[in-house]
Amino acid sequence: MRNRTTNTPIWRSIADALRSDLAEGRYSPGDKLPTEADLAARFGVNRHTVRHGLSALVEEGLIRTRRGAGAFVAATPTDYPIGRRVRFHENLIASGRRPEKRVLQVEERVATEGEAKALDIDAGDPICAYHGLSLADGQPIAVFQSMFPQTRLPGIGPALTETSSVTEALRIAGVEDYTRASTRLTAVRATATQALHLNLREGDPLLKSSGVNVDESGRPVEYGRTWFAGDRVTLTLDS
Amino acid sequence: MRNRTTNTPIWRSIADALRSDLAEGRYSPGDKLPTEADLAARFGVNRHTVRHGLSALVEEGLIRTRRGAGAFVAATPTDYPIGRRVRFHENLIASGRRPEKRVLQVEERVATEGEAKALDIDAGDPICAYHGLSLADGQPIAVFQSMFPQTRLPGIGPALTETSSVTEALRIAGVEDYTRASTRLTAVRATATQALHLNLREGDPLLKSSGVNVDESGRPVEYGRTWFAGDRVTLTLDS
Repeated sequence: MRNRTTNTPIWRSIADALRSDLAEGRYSPGDKLPTEADLAARFGVNRHTVRHGLSALVEEGLIRTRRGAGAFVAATPTDYPIGRRVRFHENLIASGRRPEKRVLQVEERVATEGEAKALDIDAGDPICAYHGLSLADGQPIAVFQSMFPQTRLPGIGPALTETSSVTEALRIAGVEDYTRASTRLTAVRATATQALHLNLREGDPLLKSSGVNVDESGRPVEYGRTWFAGDRVTLTLDS
Repeated sequence: MRNRTTNTPIWRSIADALRSDLAEGRYSPGDKLPTEADLAARFGVNRHTVRHGLSALVEEGLIRTRRGAGAFVAATPTDYPIGRRVRFHENLIASGRRPEKRVLQVEERVATEGEAKALDIDAGDPICAYHGLSLADGQPIAVFQSMFPQTRLPGIGPALTETSSVTEALRIAGVEDYTRASTRLTAVRATATQALHLNLREGDPLLKSSGVNVDESGRPVEYGRTWFAGDRVTLTLDS
């Protein structure tokens, strides 16, 4: 179907109209759009044409559809640069967001084999594990686990509890600067616990990042794993 | 429960025993492990303890569990470096895998707004779009869409169809070298079509990468989007 006066396909006119509504802030992120039937009535077209228009907006990342539940306004994902220096607070402020970290747990325990290898210590050596939640403008965007070599960094546990900031806690523990030695990325399903913390559904896609930070002499000071909500964060990498 | 002689928690002994089975190649990637009931009988423990042992192996990435279906041996994911130079064939060979690309479709059409912006051309300008499948050792690991500016690179379409390689086709079209200007990464659900191509289930997590490659003068020559199967590929980034 084409509009008789402009020769624009009708589905594109519908997408344009809804895009304007979104740009004008008529809906907020997370809002449910009118149903296909309502939109079909509003535009005087059939539901197939409405669906075509909606799918263009899905493709652009402006809305998301859930089978059986309808279409929802997508939140603009937070851009999160990954590279040699990864700093949560700086990254979020650069993206125009208010950064916040919440401590879920700080515990001292022994390192598993994988943790020991990442931190260049022995399995069974003591580590401090910081479990937390990262938020942007008050919305949870990631859960994380940061492991620190306890012997190398005595006092890191209380510093984490007090500041909730990895950068601040490392500074208190004597590490003035640190850089990312390596990063590994994959996509996984949210567990029930992760879904609960992130207001997602179990099985929703998460972007999992694992990385080791080293001090100026190249010694590992943190082994971190972060699970980002796939629909709320875009990791960016500039060459 | 602890082992009386060694004081090792029983769940850890179970994880150790299963890890040895896996290391010895007793199971192949994709194989179903014995049921929790079978493992409970084999180790003489209750199912709760078996589950604790299995969850340690899930955590290590050695096995995967599917609700109601049991535990399966995980395939070792292919490491895939992302950085300034991203080359599919080189990356896979460096990971010890046999690279293969399959052409799904090569079409010439006009650029959408997003594609035009990425390629620094005008919306409506002609592009060549290459839809394909990437395989490692014969197993599909990703679906991709690569868009090329048709006016800048006449002859790219037939070169893609003939070689199935982006690097080769760009060389034929006169681009001797290219580098990655930017990369954006997120996690998304597999659509029905993507799931079909990748032998996954609809909704399974994919790692989506978008990137622009530029020639030596900095002009965009390719805008590519790749959807990696989350359980088969780990993107790696060395600083």
